[in-house]
Amino acid sequence: MRLIVEPIVRAALLEDLGRAGDITTDAVVPADVTVEAAIATRQPGVLGGLDVALLAFELVDPDLRIERLRADGERILRGEVVARISGRARGVLAVERTALNFLCRMSGVATATRMLADAIAGYPARIVCTRKTTPGLRALEKYAVRLGGGANHRFGLDDAMLIKDNHIALAGGVRAALERARRHAGHLVKIELEVDTLDQLAEALEVGVDAVLLDNMTPETLRRAVDMVGGRAVTEASGRITPETAPAVAASGVDLISCGWITHSAPILDLGLDIVD
Amino acid sequence: MRLIVEPIVRAALLEDLGRAGDITTDAVVPADVTVEAAIATRQPGVLGGLDVALLAFELVDPDLRIERLRADGERILRGEVVARISGRARGVLAVERTALNFLCRMSGVATATRMLADAIAGYPARIVCTRKTTPGLRALEKYAVRLGGGANHRFGLDDAMLIKDNHIALAGGVRAALERARRHAGHLVKIELEVDTLDQLAEALEVGVDAVLLDNMTPETLRRAVDMVGGRAVTEASGRITPETAPAVAASGVDLISCGWITHSAPILDLGLDIVD
Amino acid sequence: MRLIVEPIVRAALLEDLGRAGDITTDAVVPADVTVEAAIATRQPGVLGGLDVALLAFELVDPDLRIERLRADGERILRGEVVARISGRARGVLAVERTALNFLCRMSGVATATRMLADAIAGYPARIVCTRKTTPGLRALEKYAVRLGGGANHRFGLDDAMLIKDNHIALAGGVRAALERARRHAGHLVKIELEVDTLDQLAEALEVGVDAVLLDNMTPETLRRAVDMVGGRAVTEASGRITPETAPAVAASGVDLISCGWITHSAPILDLGLDIVD
Amino acid sequence: MRLIVEPIVRAALLEDLGRAGDITTDAVVPADVTVEAAIATRQPGVLGGLDVALLAFELVDPDLRIERLRADGERILRGEVVARISGRARGVLAVERTALNFLCRMSGVATATRMLADAIAGYPARIVCTRKTTPGLRALEKYAVRLGGGANHRFGLDDAMLIKDNHIALAGGVRAALERARRHAGHLVKIELEVDTLDQLAEALEVGVDAVLLDNMTPETLRRAVDMVGGRAVTEASGRITPETAPAVAASGVDLISCGWITHSAPILDLGLDIVD
Amino acid sequence: MRLIVEPIVRAALLEDLGRAGDITTDAVVPADVTVEAAIATRQPGVLGGLDVALLAFELVDPDLRIERLRADGERILRGEVVARISGRARGVLAVERTALNFLCRMSGVATATRMLADAIAGYPARIVCTRKTTPGLRALEKYAVRLGGGANHRFGLDDAMLIKDNHIALAGGVRAALERARRHAGHLVKIELEVDTLDQLAEALEVGVDAVLLDNMTPETLRRAVDMVGGRAVTEASGRITPETAPAVAASGVDLISCGWITHSAPILDLGLDIVD
Amino acid sequence: MRLIVEPIVRAALLEDLGRAGDITTDAVVPADVTVEAAIATRQPGVLGGLDVALLAFELVDPDLRIERLRADGERILRGEVVARISGRARGVLAVERTALNFLCRMSGVATATRMLADAIAGYPARIVCTRKTTPGLRALEKYAVRLGGGANHRFGLDDAMLIKDNHIALAGGVRAALERARRHAGHLVKIELEVDTLDQLAEALEVGVDAVLLDNMTPETLRRAVDMVGGRAVTEASGRITPETAPAVAASGVDLISCGWITHSAPILDLGLDIVD
Repeated sequence: MRLIVEPIVRAALLEDLGRAGDITTDAVVPADVTVEAAIATRQPGVLGGLDVALLAFELVDPDLRIERLRADGERILRGEVVARISGRARGVLAVERTALNFLCRMSGVATATRMLADAIAGYPARIVCTRKTTPGLRALEKYAVRLGGGANHRFGLDDAMLIKDNHIALAGGVRAALERARRHAGHLVKIELEVDTLDQLAEALEVGVDAVLLDNMTPETLRRAVDMVGGRAVTEASGRITPETAPAVAASGVDLISCGWITHSAPILDLGLDIVD
Repeated sequence: MRLIVEPIVRAALLEDLGRAGDITTDAVVPADVTVEAAIATRQPGVLGGLDVALLAFELVDPDLRIERLRADGERILRGEVVARISGRARGVLAVERTALNFLCRMSGVATATRMLADAIAGYPARIVCTRKTTPGLRALEKYAVRLGGGANHRFGLDDAMLIKDNHIALAGGVRAALERARRHAGHLVKIELEVDTLDQLAEALEVGVDAVLLDNMTPETLRRAVDMVGGRAVTEASGRITPETAPAVAASGVDLISCGWITHSAPILDLGLDIVD
Repeated sequence: MRLIVEPIVRAALLEDLGRAGDITTDAVVPADVTVEAAIATRQPGVLGGLDVALLAFELVDPDLRIERLRADGERILRGEVVARISGRARGVLAVERTALNFLCRMSGVATATRMLADAIAGYPARIVCTRKTTPGLRALEKYAVRLGGGANHRFGLDDAMLIKDNHIALAGGVRAALERARRHAGHLVKIELEVDTLDQLAEALEVGVDAVLLDNMTPETLRRAVDMVGGRAVTEASGRITPETAPAVAASGVDLISCGWITHSAPILDLGLDIVD
Repeated sequence: MRLIVEPIVRAALLEDLGRAGDITTDAVVPADVTVEAAIATRQPGVLGGLDVALLAFELVDPDLRIERLRADGERILRGEVVARISGRARGVLAVERTALNFLCRMSGVATATRMLADAIAGYPARIVCTRKTTPGLRALEKYAVRLGGGANHRFGLDDAMLIKDNHIALAGGVRAALERARRHAGHLVKIELEVDTLDQLAEALEVGVDAVLLDNMTPETLRRAVDMVGGRAVTEASGRITPETAPAVAASGVDLISCGWITHSAPILDLGLDIVD
Repeated sequence: MRLIVEPIVRAALLEDLGRAGDITTDAVVPADVTVEAAIATRQPGVLGGLDVALLAFELVDPDLRIERLRADGERILRGEVVARISGRARGVLAVERTALNFLCRMSGVATATRMLADAIAGYPARIVCTRKTTPGLRALEKYAVRLGGGANHRFGLDDAMLIKDNHIALAGGVRAALERARRHAGHLVKIELEVDTLDQLAEALEVGVDAVLLDNMTPETLRRAVDMVGGRAVTEASGRITPETAPAVAASGVDLISCGWITHSAPILDLGLDIVD
Repeated sequence: MRLIVEPIVRAALLEDLGRAGDITTDAVVPADVTVEAAIATRQPGVLGGLDVALLAFELVDPDLRIERLRADGERILRGEVVARISGRARGVLAVERTALNFLCRMSGVATATRMLADAIAGYPARIVCTRKTTPGLRALEKYAVRLGGGANHRFGLDDAMLIKDNHIALAGGVRAALERARRHAGHLVKIELEVDTLDQLAEALEVGVDAVLLDNMTPETLRRAVDMVGGRAVTEASGRITPETAPAVAASGVDLISCGWITHSAPILDLGLDIVD
């Protein structure tokens, strides 16, 4: 929603423009020169953040004509034009880098997610993201995960409970932690618990829990965990998931496979802006 | 400088805390429980952003005792403790993820930069970054590049002129672009020009320029370019630099090797927070 | 958490201070005059927002000595002193109104909630709030509801799904709406559905849902609804709940009784600041 | 004026939308569904805040068609449609609650004020508000008071002087306080003084004052105070004014009757949004 | 009050520090070098803004030791030290210019005001400022006017009514304008009216008004205006007042002489920062 | 660029409008009255800030019709109309003062710069500004300097290095300071050094430097300095430059003459708004 995204884009533009604006373009390109530009892919992948990138152009020069040729979430090949922008050259050049910084990063997250999602395509499991996102860009990166076929985990500390190992230790055990959580949770707040062993899992299931995070377990142990759960909770596997290891994890029958890598370490997808005319 | 960094950290904390704060910790961990925590490395690399991460803890609970064991820019091994934090558990757990998001990302940038810098260690060339940074985090990522032994390029559109291919095309050639730039540039503004061919380089040198960006040239062409420049301008090579290709580029004698990858696609360096006690 | 509350308090102080500050106090009270002040109740009720109010004093004059005598959530009688503040008179007088505006409003919400909660004390049902809160003060009012013995519903549009009558109409029925919701909901997002009839309820239970909002039903119909649900979903009754009507609603066996009145129309609880010395 | 109101409305929308926006509507209602909605009264009263509420819709979806049928300050009956909104359903549903939160609260303040104003309709006295307003909403609530036929007191601490009992005590008496105030007041700053007794009133009139706040006096004492003042100052009565007690107070001949209740404890006026089509 | 001033100072520091901070000092001065600095006058005048300037140092480095030797509003000679600052050199040098920009400007306003005030020292008239202030700095400049012995006019459009020539023309004359103003003005809002002729003045006095702005009248006409007013309103003369013309204006018996020049065109007072050691 | 300017203008408008807006105009001028207004010069000079001023009108009332008759940077005579504005009177009157405060100040800076630039018209030297600007308005004042025919020095502490006397003292001399600066400066960062003596100049030239600031030297010494430099660095003269002293300084052959006065102490250029109809 534009109301949420606009302040982020505006701040990014001001970060680049600084106090004096684009001094190169203002010196070198006369004010009345117009261009037609194309945003084109340099790599295949999944498109993400096109509207965010185009909003940057619109904020700097509302008179630019913008044509969308592809949409967020679509698979793109190398060399495709995803949008065309035409109008005064100065605005186009001043915005170029900021717009691409959003577009390439979000497409990178979408593409990484899609790669993992494709790797487990035959299984019921879904890829989910984590809170290991870029400071300030969480909403955008969570959106990019969805574009890549992933699902979203919590958006923050306040919209669901995730009881982790440190919480369990400080609360005095799985049962104590879960009981305190259930006592305080609102009726629309789900509770997930991280377990490292099957004993912890058994204890959690006894008390009752909406989801369990099975951390760093082997596929074999995961399979046993899924059996133990027997549909009474959502099962999430985590721990250094890669496209290579994901299928074995998915084969264990877990519902979700969470992966920090798709937001914190996905390389960008390369897109560029070409002056057509 | 804290004045610049604090608003960024504060915004990141609020992004994670949302409207209701850390509902898991508030439910599960009593208010008077205290902990001693250690921030420890899970991978070797270069430390970056420790002060930023620790500022996050301080902003949420000024009563936490914080001990710095290592400093930004130092090489760290796997399993080292870089800082200790002790005090009320609730603040420590609520801040953990946001602090690590800064620390792991900045250390990732520093480590990637160091890897490239080490690859060209015998040559006079230096690694420099670009404006392909994360929206909102440019100052932090530029700082991390310095920690990794790199140097900074422009911080934004307003602190130096970089005349790129599109500028040249729209201005009607290298000479016209450079002359306009020199006419408008303040006396403390340097001018760099991107050239794709040696002919363009010759034209630029005729007019005079502070630096030339030699884009996507082979090591052999770079060598000829460096010869042509003959010390009259700073020479910067760019174009898909990797640790493997960097030595050959550096061997050409260029002054700088610029690389977008170290800010836009460096994987994080894994650090974590362990409850010690 | 102070990080969340401080910007709200700071903005409220600036709203009152305007451009020129407290011109009456600055004119009439010499800078070196000190006072001891007491914040005292003028009515019995439940205390809410004491820390918020005291933060206002601290932000304007960090040298004020502040003593808390009572705590948020405690029942208070008429004429009790809940905190003492001593130091320079100018700060105390400048902050008085803003601090009390927070304190009286939040105590009003806590007191109204407690009154409803007490009315249904013998029943298992709990009072919950709604999103009918004061713009800008949602987090504070939700906190005040908890102080009064109530529980919190959603904090916003993004932390749980609540499918209301308009959604059902636009989606083409209960089943279609619920199925779409389940397809899009993350694994930590609960789904509640508003039903106006028992037929709708039956359809919802068939598809499966975490909670049902039984809107404007008679106690008798509520009882039948609770029977139909049979523990398969949380049951929430709503619709013009008052302390008089609440017991009959609670007697129906519903889990939750939601009430907008406690946040949108609760009268303040009267507290004042007295200069003691 | 929109420049003043827009940041308040934007912040309220973001408070509700959070990081992820309206996840229910986005899941359940397809993007291309359109609606026609009506904002209708559920109770009779005085309309307030319609432009504020409609601005919320416009900010989220500028393409919505909005038709105003009634205007702020008009008396409305139960069941009247005050505005129609048509366009994409998603924006309408996402904004509904925030818009109504403004509209119902401001209409509540206007209605409460009108009730008091009607109660003293035959007398020359006017109802005025206080600084006991909702933090962050003072300008909106003061405007709503005017819509209900009331007048505005000070907007903040900086636009007029109001010397209260604590000021008098700390300054060493009425005369000392008033003289200091007159010495510091700019020529466009009026001075009002709170008096608890007729002796204080006599002292104030001797020194000269623009207005006197006659606090918690009986109608009989008020009448004597009005006589003593004899038109030399504006007279304001305060102290737990209700529609029942107001006429007797007004009959004393005072110019103004101030009332905190109309802003701090007025119940909302119930309005709702109905999907028409 | 610091709450009002701090955001202004913080924004000014960030305007100067930009994205990268003080790159000269960070390069040239080692982190552990300490200095003792003195803020000293280079011209005689009236000191203004010392606390604002020193707050800038405190915000950047809370460990600096700051000693105030003189106070705002005091007359200062050339070569006096008004404050001493000691501690880490980096912070001192980074803040120097921003702190002095506040201090020199505010002292300039105070000094200009004092010069005018001294010029009319024998007369009862006082110097007052206008709304012709620097965007963003109104509160600081109004404060500086008071330091120089002047009084403050309105702080903005909302704290008093000033009916100017354009208002009169659009309202259809003095009487119509004044009557409308009185009908809408709250009881603590004063009304001033600008008159260009004695006929307008007569009309204004007939209706009644708190103050009259006698615009661009000769001293002789001013004298007649003062006579006509006869104490029934505050009289303010305006129109290109200088230290040379002010005495003749003051001799007319007006209460106030307003002057835009003291805020919009006062030259700064030169103060500098010297490294002592 | 509007993205940079709009927040500054918006804040200035809110500073003047306060909580209640333009209460005079709202009371005196009916909502449907329209006007045609002209912004006209009262003094000859150079126009600066017209777009900034007109943006203020547009932000408050987008329906106003605005016609630009002159452009920023043009020389204007007394009595010229530079823009016409027509539409609803209320917006025009509410914005008038804020718009003029920007326009008069920026035109004042442009005019002062032009006066200095004209004084040295026959010489190659150019006038440059300093960082002695108004807090919050640096970008606008630097732009006004360019309009007046001047050039811009650094925009802040972060876009170039200027090694001043204090830096030299703390670094242990010219050579040490310069060498440290060169070691840390990015390849697009220029270095200027302030010298007070020809000996310092000689030392600086030995090490190499981009520009030298020749502080407070006589024209004769300046001439010798220019000779010594011999084109190896840009030469900048500073120190209490006036239109009278500037020609002698320019005659010395320096490249730049810097002057703080044009931004910190230039009187405004008087422009006003006249209601035409």
